[in-house]
Amino acid sequence: MTIKTIPVPIEQLFNIAATYGTPFYLYLEAPLRANARAINSAFSWAPHFKEHFAVKALPNPYILKILHEEGFGTDCSSLSELILSQKAGISGEEIFFSSNDTPTEEYLKALQLGAILNLDDISHLAFIEKFSTLPDVLSFRYNPGSLRKGGNEIIGFPEQAKYGLTLPQIMRALIYCKNKGVKRLGLHTMVISNELQGASFIETAIIMFELAVKVKESLGIELEFINLGGGVGIPYKPEEVALDFAWLGQCINEEYHRILKPAGLDKLHLHLECGRAVSGPYGYLIAKVLHHKDTYKQYIGLDACMADLMRPALYGAYHHITVLGKEQDVHDHIYDITGSLCENNDKFAIDRALPKIEIGDLLVLHDTGAHGHAMGFNYNGRLRGKELLLCEDGRVEQIRRAETLDDYFATLDFSRLLD
Amino acid sequence: MTIKTIPVPIEQLFNIAATYGTPFYLYLEAPLRANARAINSAFSWAPHFKEHFAVKALPNPYILKILHEEGFGTDCSSLSELILSQKAGISGEEIFFSSNDTPTEEYLKALQLGAILNLDDISHLAFIEKFSTLPDVLSFRYNPGSLRKGGNEIIGFPEQAKYGLTLPQIMRALIYCKNKGVKRLGLHTMVISNELQGASFIETAIIMFELAVKVKESLGIELEFINLGGGVGIPYKPEEVALDFAWLGQCINEEYHRILKPAGLDKLHLHLECGRAVSGPYGYLIAKVLHHKDTYKQYIGLDACMADLMRPALYGAYHHITVLGKEQDVHDHIYDITGSLCENNDKFAIDRALPKIEIGDLLVLHDTGAHGHAMGFNYNGRLRGKELLLCEDGRVEQIRRAETLDDYFATLDFSRLLD
Repeated sequence: MTIKTIPVPIEQLFNIAATYGTPFYLYLEAPLRANARAINSAFSWAPHFKEHFAVKALPNPYILKILHEEGFGTDCSSLSELILSQKAGISGEEIFFSSNDTPTEEYLKALQLGAILNLDDISHLAFIEKFSTLPDVLSFRYNPGSLRKGGNEIIGFPEQAKYGLTLPQIMRALIYCKNKGVKRLGLHTMVISNELQGASFIETAIIMFELAVKVKESLGIELEFINLGGGVGIPYKPEEVALDFAWLGQCINEEYHRILKPAGLDKLHLHLECGRAVSGPYGYLIAKVLHHKDTYKQYIGLDACMADLMRPALYGAYHHITVLGKEQDVHDHIYDITGSLCENNDKFAIDRALPKIEIGDLLVLHDTGAHGHAMGFNYNGRLRGKELLLCEDGRVEQIRRAETLDDYFATLDFSRLLD
Repeated sequence: MTIKTIPVPIEQLFNIAATYGTPFYLYLEAPLRANARAINSAFSWAPHFKEHFAVKALPNPYILKILHEEGFGTDCSSLSELILSQKAGISGEEIFFSSNDTPTEEYLKALQLGAILNLDDISHLAFIEKFSTLPDVLSFRYNPGSLRKGGNEIIGFPEQAKYGLTLPQIMRALIYCKNKGVKRLGLHTMVISNELQGASFIETAIIMFELAVKVKESLGIELEFINLGGGVGIPYKPEEVALDFAWLGQCINEEYHRILKPAGLDKLHLHLECGRAVSGPYGYLIAKVLHHKDTYKQYIGLDACMADLMRPALYGAYHHITVLGKEQDVHDHIYDITGSLCENNDKFAIDRALPKIEIGDLLVLHDTGAHGHAMGFNYNGRLRGKELLLCEDGRVEQIRRAETLDDYFATLDFSRLLD
């Protein structure tokens, strides 16, 4: 059971809406920092623990800067994300570059920043050597194939996922690197997404720790680090329960010592690259009710749409909704909550029980601090909205302005229309 | 059976790729115009026939201008789309404004342009009257509910769709308008999407024509026009067959005369708002092979990704793929064709039989002239690509430049990061 609240005085929220206009994303600095500290604390036993925040979840440099102050690095997979990290003051091995199908220019930028390159395929070794010597440190993404039992709803069965190297390829890649003089080697995996069951992560840790032992025993190579990836989910629905990082850290600690210590690998560094579980619960999309429509069903039309938040339309994903100021009212009305896109799936909720809603009400869409604004598009000519940060000291900062029509038209040259 | 070719000499395609760089969308002016003429011809029997191209399918003003030269107007549902129409020289009643959950500013712009307002809900009459008198011409979107048997894969069952007014509301709205002095009235519907079966469109025409008769008989109101919406699909798969517009036009002509003539309504204007069927087959996404990956499956990595074309990832949609210059080769290799997004569903095709592909090959993704570039996003910091037009005279024009990092960062103010 997870209680869905927004820990901000209601008058302040109405004031923010009045000052900045709706719709907007609001991120809360204080709980974001507290969560980052809890994650670090859960893994404080691990040598050189580093969480690399998955930039794609919330690609805002002000958020990256806050997380960096808490000791987090970044997980990047594109040129834009590398530059965002750099702008936020993050560089070198604080950046884990976990890309796939990577173009040359992105590897060059990652090399220039001194990021840890995490190669998605064995062929990328030769690809990189066309324009650079191999760096001193390298990582490879492991795809365990059918070794990992069962699939994950989002990533699917590992053997059908596009990511990573097979076990024989991992071995060949490590030998190749050793022979080429690469000094420090690590392995990475990421086989789950938005998962709340701790067992999956412990299983992943066991697979990777046993692999590190195997690499030492069969190749004589001592890995420097293991990156266990991310994929930790959040309780979008009130009836779900958050994964307890302290408990998870303890469980992984036990496996670490059980598997790695006897093999003399108890200096192995540990990396994570969570996104959703870091920032997801601390972001809120706040929108205003424009219309109420009474046809075959009851529809509430917001001034936000799926251009602002794609997950409900894309995955049928649940986001909890509260009507600001009516949290305690009886939820005796059934509504579809819609946006204005000319797509019937532009609905934030279908058949949702809520208190009676009136035009002008403010609706809060919870748990939108990850994969929210980041996934927005401009379909139907819709513009993406602004992002606000509620700072620890109570100030509100706009950390991204809303798009304008000029932004939307920026790639068009209207002048030649007159020809 | 639809033969999937790109009617451009192969050397010219290689030259365009070399000149402009991949990936790019290429639209072909000549067949686009020919198709527009065929649609007009199919409905030339109808009084004041007007096709309003659904801007959301391909929101490029150069395409709108070409279609306008062929007599088409536009179907808009947002402020951006209204302005794109205006920039392309389209205004007044050539614009059908079919929005839903509409904000005030969009109605104001549509009124300023003299567009036909197509209201999605009866409450929008009062909404508009808060800031304007009702215009001389108005349309309402009809939702037939369960009157229309069965649903459509994309729009679903009409009674569960967010669009339109019920029959009693249509009647009330028309009476209200008549009493308010609105001089010219019309009705619109749109209950299907990407449909290839002609029977659905004939059924829609029958429903709307019978409604026009009912409106005349029960309210004494002679509608000026009916907009039958769009939703005509295209044969994405080679085994599918295109809907024959000439045949459809003839069938609807028969119903028009059967139903409307006896009621003295044979002056009723006819509107359509097709998008996909107008431009879809005449657009091609062309991308280059960056990587070949051999793990549990064979993966081909392109320099395009789902940021360029979302439909395969979003709907599992099929887009035919040809390997340029290898059209006649045996299709004896099975590939997943992937992009670089850090999402496992970033695959343009799964288990597709194709000729042996080599790095550097150019792949053509067919039928991407609608809902292709338009649906692109910037997830993972990916940039959306350029759009090229192959003009009738053989010239190539860039009608949209690719996004740059500056575009991607435009809504961020990095300066305060230094605080």
